[in-house]
Amino acid sequence: MRELRKDPVTQRWVLICTDYAKSGGEPCPFCPGNEGMTPTEIYATREVGSQPNGPGWWTRVVPDKFPFLVIYGDLDRRAEGIYDLMNGVGAHELVIETPDHSGDWSTMEVAQLERVLWTYQERILDLRLDPRFRFVMISKNFHFYTSLVEHPHSHIVALPVVPRGIELEMRGSKEYYDLKERCIFCDMIREEKRANKRVIFESQHYISFIPFAPRYSFETLVLPKVHCPDYGEKGQNFDDLARLVRTLLARIKETKGSPPYSVILHTSPNPPFHQEIYHWHLEIRPRVYEGMGFEWGSGFFVTYTAPEEAAAVIRGK
Amino acid sequence: MRELRKDPVTQRWVLICTDYAKSGGEPCPFCPGNEGMTPTEIYATREVGSQPNGPGWWTRVVPDKFPFLVIYGDLDRRAEGIYDLMNGVGAHELVIETPDHSGDWSTMEVAQLERVLWTYQERILDLRLDPRFRFVMISKNFHFYTSLVEHPHSHIVALPVVPRGIELEMRGSKEYYDLKERCIFCDMIREEKRANKRVIFESQHYISFIPFAPRYSFETLVLPKVHCPDYGEKGQNFDDLARLVRTLLARIKETKGSPPYSVILHTSPNPPFHQEIYHWHLEIRPRVYEGMGFEWGSGFFVTYTAPEEAAAVIRGK
Repeated sequence: MRELRKDPVTQRWVLICTDYAKSGGEPCPFCPGNEGMTPTEIYATREVGSQPNGPGWWTRVVPDKFPFLVIYGDLDRRAEGIYDLMNGVGAHELVIETPDHSGDWSTMEVAQLERVLWTYQERILDLRLDPRFRFVMISKNFHFYTSLVEHPHSHIVALPVVPRGIELEMRGSKEYYDLKERCIFCDMIREEKRANKRVIFESQHYISFIPFAPRYSFETLVLPKVHCPDYGEKGQNFDDLARLVRTLLARIKETKGSPPYSVILHTSPNPPFHQEIYHWHLEIRPRVYEGMGFEWGSGFFVTYTAPEEAAAVIRGK
Repeated sequence: MRELRKDPVTQRWVLICTDYAKSGGEPCPFCPGNEGMTPTEIYATREVGSQPNGPGWWTRVVPDKFPFLVIYGDLDRRAEGIYDLMNGVGAHELVIETPDHSGDWSTMEVAQLERVLWTYQERILDLRLDPRFRFVMISKNFHFYTSLVEHPHSHIVALPVVPRGIELEMRGSKEYYDLKERCIFCDMIREEKRANKRVIFESQHYISFIPFAPRYSFETLVLPKVHCPDYGEKGQNFDDLARLVRTLLARIKETKGSPPYSVILHTSPNPPFHQEIYHWHLEIRPRVYEGMGFEWGSGFFVTYTAPEEAAAVIRGK
């Protein structure tokens, strides 16, 4: 069963995916030479002259063998009693980020991480052409205990709904813009530069800081400094971004004992749900402390390290 | 530092609590005979003739030695740059649920669990008298890895804000009521009884079912069958509730290998934030699978067991 179901109270869509299998084991299906172990590749960046589905690639995108959502079929929106649901239609792809089995964003060459970032953009632009999809969700886990394949990879999931977290941020940005005629994220960047207490690193085009009111200790945002709603826009400076993110993750590793971490891309939904006053960003969450248990059930979060202190620790000053 | 800070994008309040220490170790401060190891008790149910802060109690409420929020002081709502914050003022109490160090809701005598449920109500009614507080959050973790004290206890936290999760449920209930002039939770109960696929147990006064669109596998709701916004209302049938919850947790233990679990009470906020069309309930989450990592960053949840299947497993039919 793959169904998208809507909670009638909060109006939040969730996915019920009951035959999700996980793979792992030896040999690693993502290593060069084992290209035949994955489904046919969708996209790759490659050395000149190398052949699709063979070695010579730098980044490689393949369908997830055990997808959350299936690419074929209609959504078939319908009711069941008082409830709303639709079929679990969508795309689920994996980005194999590097041929290096034990690679890591904090040690990867900047040029390689830049390729990963461009690969994300290519896939967003392509998946956006499918009118069934409203949002492309990109996420990456490092050393997270649910990952069975260690080889560095990211998940790309194209959804027929906008995830609740993005929707709430868009609603907040819209309300702020209606009130002030300014982007809330641009205002936050200005405020963070002025206060200069929560900024971790700033480069020519990007800035990273711990938000004023984080849900988790050491939660970090990375944003373009000039207003940009959409990660898919041309003219991004991903060389600069790769350098900043690499340094940031290396510092987190160094100061916090190499914790598992997650990275999530927040970008404006696909047209016609695109919103010009949104501002794309990366959310990075090092998993240094997991919380008490009531957060999931109440939406009330407690953070045990002040953002100002956390930024100082990672920045190293 | 104890500060409540508001995220400017989503308008969600979070607590920054930086000098939170945890205690544990031997001997257990919650066992009978060790009453002197806790702060002075706030409330207790006791054998006739027994003395406060001595043995002879059935349930005992004490301030948390290392509270999230402090009881004294003004909220002092203020701005910091573009951000909003206030002091971390509130109450943080612990309910020691039984004298039995290795007690558990699934094996506890029904009369004892009933005392715990009445103790919650007593504390809600008392904490509500403080006009600084808007919501009393009650949560319990069983064998959760952040609990250093094994002796069964619950947390009661009185907050000067309504937690985001409750606020979103209240907003949804209000919108539904405005549209239909019916309580959404009452409609769900009717629908669940009709469909009879996700109901686990039903007693004279309460019903437990897995929601149509759960965020986590085996997430379970327990609600009074007759509309009731507030856990603090008189005339609850907690003997009946205790029996149902005990049976439910015993079945979860039996069928899912005694997973850790959390229980959260969702009830209407304190006056004047009380909402007559809300419907109090318990949310129970057995921790059978923790998710991929993108849930926290996107608000998009994937559940790997269909609610219908999960209900059948626990019900045992």
